[in-house]
Amino acid sequence: MPQQERSRATQARLLEATVECLVEFGWSGTTSTVVATRAGVSRGAQLHHYPTRAALVTAAVVHLTERRAAEIRAEAALLPAGPGRLDRVIDMLASAFTGPLFVAALELWLAARTDAELRDALVPLEARVGREMHRLTVELLDADERKPGVRESVQATLDLLRGLGVANLLSDDSARRTALLGIWKRQLATMLDGSDTPNTTVEA
Amino acid sequence: MPQQERSRATQARLLEATVECLVEFGWSGTTSTVVATRAGVSRGAQLHHYPTRAALVTAAVVHLTERRAAEIRAEAALLPAGPGRLDRVIDMLASAFTGPLFVAALELWLAARTDAELRDALVPLEARVGREMHRLTVELLDADERKPGVRESVQATLDLLRGLGVANLLSDDSARRTALLGIWKRQLATMLDGSDTPNTTVEA
Repeated sequence: MPQQERSRATQARLLEATVECLVEFGWSGTTSTVVATRAGVSRGAQLHHYPTRAALVTAAVVHLTERRAAEIRAEAALLPAGPGRLDRVIDMLASAFTGPLFVAALELWLAARTDAELRDALVPLEARVGREMHRLTVELLDADERKPGVRESVQATLDLLRGLGVANLLSDDSARRTALLGIWKRQLATMLDGSDTPNTTVEA
Repeated sequence: MPQQERSRATQARLLEATVECLVEFGWSGTTSTVVATRAGVSRGAQLHHYPTRAALVTAAVVHLTERRAAEIRAEAALLPAGPGRLDRVIDMLASAFTGPLFVAALELWLAARTDAELRDALVPLEARVGREMHRLTVELLDADERKPGVRESVQATLDLLRGLGVANLLSDDSARRTALLGIWKRQLATMLDGSDTPNTTVEA
């Protein structure tokens, strides 16, 4: 492998291992040494790519969020248009918000409250990840944000999914989540219509 | 003070101090010693009331959640009936989900993922706190859960507020939250109507 490719492979292994460690051991257990061991990378190589623990974990969240967004986009591209599309998109997003990357990000967000270095690294990233998730959702739902209330409906969907992700941390909340999202999908469909009297235009 | 009253005062000081420490130092910094010092209580007295760290922190979350629920109930009892009531109730709940007790609970929830003793203590408590918050919200909103979709709308409100609480952890999200909840209040009002074609009955 050429040098550049080997570097990229090393980085990818370190970033994957970081998320795995955050999920498995939490922030306090995710030391640089533990990550290097898990990734099978020397401490020297790790420090070369990511000089600090904050640099490593923020890179992991950015990199893996972008990769997850790309995967969701690719998956969504295969969905047929039509009434079932919104449901499938919400299911895909819900599975992202209950997956390991969400748990890893939450570990960092919470730790950053009481860790100034981590906080300085995460605050700009939080805004960026938030914008990226919003843009992705608008795109997947084909939402027209010029209509009144549509922007807020997309935001509410993401905030709701974040809340559902937290509710799933300690116990399997999938039955309640599925029922709740079943109702939400129908609400969202009318909200994306952008009319305050949604069903009158469709059914009346 | 009689003995029983002194015990209650000592317990209250320990539980308050626990939440303060969780907010300020996170779970890893909330050791029994730190809490005892903050509360001005001897280690012996602390161990008498709460023999383990898990017992202390779970008692803190239960006690303070119940107290906060009682405060919200008392505040809500003063609200006039009428169209503004729902808005004020949502504002009160939103302020609970962005306050110190939410942050303290989130610290515990996340720590419990990787701490078996804490997890065993929290899982039954999570269900209980969840039921209590649901019941409180139903009561404050005067929601009729026999109507279709109403139960899920109440749940979605709480999940949304939880998500908004997380979004407020590292930066002041109040402007976005206020705008979003403005839309949500109108949606919720129609959802609590329990009709799938909400506005037709009111406006058509």
